[in-house]
Amino acid sequence: MNEFELIRHYFCFSTPDGRYPAPDADSSSPVALGVGDDCALLNIPPDRQLAVTTDTLVSGVHFTTDGPPGLIARRALRVNLSDLAAMGATPLGFQLALTLPALDRNWLELFSAGLAEDAERFACPLIGGDTTRGPLSITITMMGTVPRQQALTRSGANAGDIICVSGTLGDAALALEHLASPAADAYLLERYWLPEPRLTLGRLLGSRASAGLDVSDGLLQDVGHIARASGLTACIELEKVPVSSSLLHHKGDDAARRLAISGGDDYELCFTASERALAEIDSRAIGIGCRITRIGQMLPLSADGVAVICIDDGGHRLAIRETGYDHFQH
Amino acid sequence: MNEFELIRHYFCFSTPDGRYPAPDADSSSPVALGVGDDCALLNIPPDRQLAVTTDTLVSGVHFTTDGPPGLIARRALRVNLSDLAAMGATPLGFQLALTLPALDRNWLELFSAGLAEDAERFACPLIGGDTTRGPLSITITMMGTVPRQQALTRSGANAGDIICVSGTLGDAALALEHLASPAADAYLLERYWLPEPRLTLGRLLGSRASAGLDVSDGLLQDVGHIARASGLTACIELEKVPVSSSLLHHKGDDAARRLAISGGDDYELCFTASERALAEIDSRAIGIGCRITRIGQMLPLSADGVAVICIDDGGHRLAIRETGYDHFQH
Repeated sequence: MNEFELIRHYFCFSTPDGRYPAPDADSSSPVALGVGDDCALLNIPPDRQLAVTTDTLVSGVHFTTDGPPGLIARRALRVNLSDLAAMGATPLGFQLALTLPALDRNWLELFSAGLAEDAERFACPLIGGDTTRGPLSITITMMGTVPRQQALTRSGANAGDIICVSGTLGDAALALEHLASPAADAYLLERYWLPEPRLTLGRLLGSRASAGLDVSDGLLQDVGHIARASGLTACIELEKVPVSSSLLHHKGDDAARRLAISGGDDYELCFTASERALAEIDSRAIGIGCRITRIGQMLPLSADGVAVICIDDGGHRLAIRETGYDHFQH
Repeated sequence: MNEFELIRHYFCFSTPDGRYPAPDADSSSPVALGVGDDCALLNIPPDRQLAVTTDTLVSGVHFTTDGPPGLIARRALRVNLSDLAAMGATPLGFQLALTLPALDRNWLELFSAGLAEDAERFACPLIGGDTTRGPLSITITMMGTVPRQQALTRSGANAGDIICVSGTLGDAALALEHLASPAADAYLLERYWLPEPRLTLGRLLGSRASAGLDVSDGLLQDVGHIARASGLTACIELEKVPVSSSLLHHKGDDAARRLAISGGDDYELCFTASERALAEIDSRAIGIGCRITRIGQMLPLSADGVAVICIDDGGHRLAIRETGYDHFQH
């Protein structure tokens, strides 16, 4: 099986007959031309902007070589979809760059089935890409659209805005400690492998929140991006950071919250909004079944220029580092 | 230096001050938001379609680990630009997924300088991407735009159309044999490392040629894609395939033409056009200094269903395989 046969066999689920597609004369169709030509062709509505993001998962770094191929595929897709969500964008399609050490049919079967499942679930077809030989890695470039002037960026926060986060944090970091365990908690494993891209929430936030992003590297590090991009200091109230009952059960309150502010991979949305905007966001978030928690406030840039501070419930500043956690000072 | 500092230091040449860019309020600017947020934002004019392509270069497969970083960067960019050219598209910007085994500052300095040089030359800014640790590889997803209904696809060829190719073929394949040689021919090395994306020719062909692609895997294999996508048989006249004097000098006439039809990496455009359209293409190609050579004709699908045949100057069919070359029958 050569490269072309490989592509046709495993990755033409957007053109089920495996034939070369012809450009779609219907200009209202978002994907005018998919897999099989030199480029894919997309139609972008004139009242929308294109949003583009890229994430790479490398074997041995982001997943183990013997990791489940279907889940690796779905996670790769969801991690990218989460970046669209963080901009308030709606998925359009994606490019897949797949580097494989060998043509392992069993692996490819499972990988492409997982990819197809989530591509359909999120209405986000594979439109093209590249397959190469080499150490296993997956790069997805995800494209979506967002109404003009409504993209949710990192730089729009104002002093006084409330800082919020969706769902709970820290589960994926805990799951990482248990991935190889046969007795691993199914809830935690799903939180790691199948993060839920908050696309509906992102669209709701687009025109209402002042700034936002997805929490992929850890809350403190990520909220630091909003703070620096907006020229402010973010103040996080540690006890308000939402954690799951599963995380509390495994770690206890103190360690759970440490993991929640430092651990990555949760792909929840963190955003800032004025009180007024937040009232509207809160009422609408109920309708989409998405929990939103207030965890702090944006302040004018502190005298020492620190982007993120963390306080306890007595209002005392805790000694933290954005990139992780040294220790607590009480 | 962590990942964020790395990105800012080496890859913010599209935002020279290294600060987070704010979304461009000017909706006529193609790149509304570049490196530094969850997604890049692009404005696509309503009368144009988005063209997207992805190519990966893996160390040890597509280049040697000790290959020149600046040339590796420029080749990665040009290989992707060539796919835009093959659709008749104009570059807009690109995503870079860079996987690095270590933070080698010297390597990064040279790589990013090469990337910046060609990004400027082809008016194609870096708009985002991902940097990860792992075995060295470079994935670029290139975006461009093409006027609606004018993209040059592989499926539009008609029986009777003339098959043409730009420039000369086989130089890059010859260069590959000499890459490691200190006495390597400078012309050949440049043909390999710095293929010229035929963007101007591609735009000229968009509304005039019936089908086209870039020759990346070898002429016979690539013209086979046009033939299959169009339901026809391509007939190539071996003696008409254009070769450089350098290739002739090194290989002699027979071996030169074998390399020209089987070797890849030249990134010339191969296209089909009616006689009438070709007259106009020929006259305009002179103005852009691009040599175009007629090398064959599209025929109705042959009885044996073969997509590509190759004939000598006596009209006798030669025994060939698309994926390379077995031997000649006379």
